[in-house]
Amino acid sequence: MKIIYSPQHHLRQPKTELHGGELVTPFECRQRVDYILKELARRDYSTPLPENIYSLKPVLAVHDKHYVDFLSTVWQHWCDAGYKGEAIPNVWPARSMRSDIVPEHIEGQLGYYALASESSITRGTWEAALAAKDVALTAADLLLKGDQSAFALCRPPGHHAASNQFGGYCFLNNAAIAAQHLRDQGAARVVCLDVDFHHGNGTQQIFYQRDDVMTISLHGDPAHAFPYFLGYADETGTGKGKGFTHNYPLPPAADYVTWGAALGQALDTIQQYDCDYLVVSLGVDTYENDPISFFKLTSDDFFDYGKRIGALGIPTLFVMEGGYAVEEIGINTANVLDGFQAANKV
Amino acid sequence: MKIIYSPQHHLRQPKTELHGGELVTPFECRQRVDYILKELARRDYSTPLPENIYSLKPVLAVHDKHYVDFLSTVWQHWCDAGYKGEAIPNVWPARSMRSDIVPEHIEGQLGYYALASESSITRGTWEAALAAKDVALTAADLLLKGDQSAFALCRPPGHHAASNQFGGYCFLNNAAIAAQHLRDQGAARVVCLDVDFHHGNGTQQIFYQRDDVMTISLHGDPAHAFPYFLGYADETGTGKGKGFTHNYPLPPAADYVTWGAALGQALDTIQQYDCDYLVVSLGVDTYENDPISFFKLTSDDFFDYGKRIGALGIPTLFVMEGGYAVEEIGINTANVLDGFQAANKV
Repeated sequence: MKIIYSPQHHLRQPKTELHGGELVTPFECRQRVDYILKELARRDYSTPLPENIYSLKPVLAVHDKHYVDFLSTVWQHWCDAGYKGEAIPNVWPARSMRSDIVPEHIEGQLGYYALASESSITRGTWEAALAAKDVALTAADLLLKGDQSAFALCRPPGHHAASNQFGGYCFLNNAAIAAQHLRDQGAARVVCLDVDFHHGNGTQQIFYQRDDVMTISLHGDPAHAFPYFLGYADETGTGKGKGFTHNYPLPPAADYVTWGAALGQALDTIQQYDCDYLVVSLGVDTYENDPISFFKLTSDDFFDYGKRIGALGIPTLFVMEGGYAVEEIGINTANVLDGFQAANKV
Repeated sequence: MKIIYSPQHHLRQPKTELHGGELVTPFECRQRVDYILKELARRDYSTPLPENIYSLKPVLAVHDKHYVDFLSTVWQHWCDAGYKGEAIPNVWPARSMRSDIVPEHIEGQLGYYALASESSITRGTWEAALAAKDVALTAADLLLKGDQSAFALCRPPGHHAASNQFGGYCFLNNAAIAAQHLRDQGAARVVCLDVDFHHGNGTQQIFYQRDDVMTISLHGDPAHAFPYFLGYADETGTGKGKGFTHNYPLPPAADYVTWGAALGQALDTIQQYDCDYLVVSLGVDTYENDPISFFKLTSDDFFDYGKRIGALGIPTLFVMEGGYAVEEIGINTANVLDGFQAANKV
């Protein structure tokens, strides 16, 4: 399995994350990637390949142009307004407020385009996000050329980014951009399977009205976990997308018995859909010692579920999402990839 | 003019306000009230009277019960969850997210019931908010007993609080609670006139479908100013409330020529409405040196517009809202009250 990686992720180095009423050192940090690279090297994976550079066209295939313009300029506008901290939203268009107007002031725009405020925007965030989508697209192109699998080591992650909202450490939805790219290059059907601890709200929202990209997410019940306001079981798609969204919200302390059973249902659904490609949003924050999640998967479980995904026999793109137990993130990520390849060698 | 005041506002002493990406010392602080009391004493206003204690019934006449339950317990739940900072929302149900579900986890609930995140919730916030509504209700009862005017020196302020959302330093909408109380005690029609720099989004939302309480707000254009997502000129009420909401969004650097012209239109509208009582949401952050606003009113302008409001001859309840140039907040507030009384003495 080839790995695509860009050192450009170093350009995103926020110093603050709003968490529990404090500005803490961000959980989503560059060291996460270092641990993954180190473990992959230790297991004799081939040296990661660099990303190719793509235009904004595949981005604009899933994201709103005004949102992309906003992301590309927000840091400058924030600085121009004289603010001294990193860009953190503090007012938003929810419920009693209007959502049909984009304010002119950058503080209002920041809140308009956000769905959460833990993801401080800083100098370099846009450039890192651009590189992450290039990583995902480069890996997708490996599949289009015939590779059975590829691993896009994206950072920042993407699955919380909606068509025109950022949050949950995500700005551009790397998995959705890659899935759409596969479609645009000829695939008839693609499945996005999200195994990150958190609901893949952005990916779901982007494809919610479509039957050509199925989205499936296993995640912490949003009644108890971020992103709280999407990912419930009754969300199944709309219009011609009805029935092509599947959610498995799972309770606090769910272990691999519970999680693996939900995965089994998801894999059955994928098999029946007859897709050309599978895009796995790979977050390993389902790990039992993750600092901000509540599932109880062990490192061995990651190998096992990688094998089960591999047994589907579908060309598969793994796109890195979350996972915050930095010491173990490399082991768990590599275990999924090893498991996948073990299945394909059988 | 009698003044109602409660020292209970001291119970609200947040240490943090999310502003410009930093946690700064809150602009909405107890010293604001000290300056007002000091200036009123200097001008020989009679000693402020204490508040009477009211039940939650007048609160529940304008606020949702679940919201009130939330406010009364959020600090305990936040502490129980183990968070170390003050309670600051960091995820919310805007746009692509669902707003029909209240999450069970306190982090999700906090975001559900918020419209902004500058207003850290702390121990004592609920108790201070309860006292502030008692101050407003006690002052409203003075009008019901025949006083021509009263000043409710409320803190925390209230006009941004919607039926079930907090934000903008506001938790319970003191002005709306008082206006509804006046209605419930026999008044046929009440006008809420909001002269705070910021749009009175909460008061507007609470009465948006009604023709018995007119809301009028003069404020910084929300395209450029908090709360950004309400307060545009095309918001005029709905249903039988159509035509009973009036907004005057004014541009950056507006001075008294501009502001006073809008006030003139507002006063004409009030005269035509034939109301029994006028509730003025009195924010003095329209002052030229206010640190977080952009109008250019001078201290003399406050006296002048107080006189113009007084000339209406309508029994008037002044309810304190914003104003953050702490040194001058007393002078400007007292100028409005002095102007009002000067008109009534003529």
